[in-house]
Amino acid sequence: MPPRFYAPDLDATRGSARLHDDEARHLARVLRLGPGAEVRVFDGRGHEWQAEVQAVSARAADLRLVAPAPAAPEWAVPVTLGLAVLKGDKMDAVVRDAVMLGAHAIRPFVSTRAETSLAMLARAARVERWRRVAVSSAKQCGRAVVPAVHEPVSLASLLTEPPEIPVAARAGGVARFLLVEPSAGAGAGALAARDLLAVPPPASVLVLVGPEGGWTAGEVEAATAAGVRLLQVGRTTLRADAVPLVALTAVGLGLGQL
Amino acid sequence: MPPRFYAPDLDATRGSARLHDDEARHLARVLRLGPGAEVRVFDGRGHEWQAEVQAVSARAADLRLVAPAPAAPEWAVPVTLGLAVLKGDKMDAVVRDAVMLGAHAIRPFVSTRAETSLAMLARAARVERWRRVAVSSAKQCGRAVVPAVHEPVSLASLLTEPPEIPVAARAGGVARFLLVEPSAGAGAGALAARDLLAVPPPASVLVLVGPEGGWTAGEVEAATAAGVRLLQVGRTTLRADAVPLVALTAVGLGLGQL
Repeated sequence: MPPRFYAPDLDATRGSARLHDDEARHLARVLRLGPGAEVRVFDGRGHEWQAEVQAVSARAADLRLVAPAPAAPEWAVPVTLGLAVLKGDKMDAVVRDAVMLGAHAIRPFVSTRAETSLAMLARAARVERWRRVAVSSAKQCGRAVVPAVHEPVSLASLLTEPPEIPVAARAGGVARFLLVEPSAGAGAGALAARDLLAVPPPASVLVLVGPEGGWTAGEVEAATAAGVRLLQVGRTTLRADAVPLVALTAVGLGLGQL
Repeated sequence: MPPRFYAPDLDATRGSARLHDDEARHLARVLRLGPGAEVRVFDGRGHEWQAEVQAVSARAADLRLVAPAPAAPEWAVPVTLGLAVLKGDKMDAVVRDAVMLGAHAIRPFVSTRAETSLAMLARAARVERWRRVAVSSAKQCGRAVVPAVHEPVSLASLLTEPPEIPVAARAGGVARFLLVEPSAGAGAGALAARDLLAVPPPASVLVLVGPEGGWTAGEVEAATAAGVRLLQVGRTTLRADAVPLVALTAVGLGLGQL
């Protein structure tokens, strides 16, 4: 596979694409490609092309679109990962892996036991960083879609906001799951991952994964009251940064997408 | 849950257990527990007890067994993870996560594109390190079983050795899978993870996960010739250190164990 580049403003009707900044630098300085080199370019919305480098300048690279290329298929049921913000590098790794596995979008949130606040996240420009990680991960794994990384919100507002897709708009509606640990005691009424196999396919899924310290009893109650179902994957305690990958795999496979 | 300790030579008929070395240090120096403290102790073979600290010395700690404690249930179908040795810390993280998720055993191996050799692994005492990681992971995640971490072997000998459980001994025999990447081109005849749901439950499973550079065509051929089935999880390229966790989750759920 030739190297892949991301051109979010790509307009195929022009027959060409321009790479800016990081993407142009990656092409010219890191990979040292010049005119004539064969590459792939994708728009982050599911479209990909074979392309040829035409010109390289200090700040941009121009590509000629040669032919549409087959894009890696996306999951038929989009699964958004709601993710309690983890510390530092762990969050980068989780965003990267979630994109690689096929998450539709990432919704970072802050809950009671979070070790950060929305104000701290904004000051540190964390969401911009996660968006760069998502782009880089899509480039590496072969996806032509760059999942949206949303602005962080509080768990409370995530639970009460209207679902993105109106329930009536598609058969199945939005299925929302709160991942609980076996030790949390909340597991009594929780679905096991294998129960997902018997759930009618929803139009979309939101899986909420908690912080390292877990959910408070009040959060589990609020989620349940909001119609979110409890989900338990396995019977042991996993590391906080392994949970999202395990949960996405379980939900993806539970919905027949892997 | 009280702190958990590992006593591999535990003999319940004596009504007591002795912790040595690392375990004793963990109890006395790290957690600063003394006589009277309530703990849990497990033998690494699936048995766990409530216990009370009786005496602590420089090199050992003596526990009195109070009552059997319920152990976290193990997977009904044991799944062994055959793992091409990854570089440095990545291997530690994969062993830790595989134990947490429920792997029955770890079989490290070296294949053509490995960045190490059996001789190098032996000189660096890597397997001893992985065994310590497995103990520590079992302690943390709540398993009363410490999965065996076997001596590294070559892929060729792993493929040709007789299966641990004779095929005729239990219905279903041993199912062996070689994890292939979508980009490897070997995917044509590969099962998807969801196909596992339709596979009759085997007596045990061995899942082989390749090195960062992937399998050679000859290795895929040799595995197929040895009766190993190709398995593909998802349609994108995952990081080498994320693959084992995704594969174990998929196989565990595919067999109805999560």
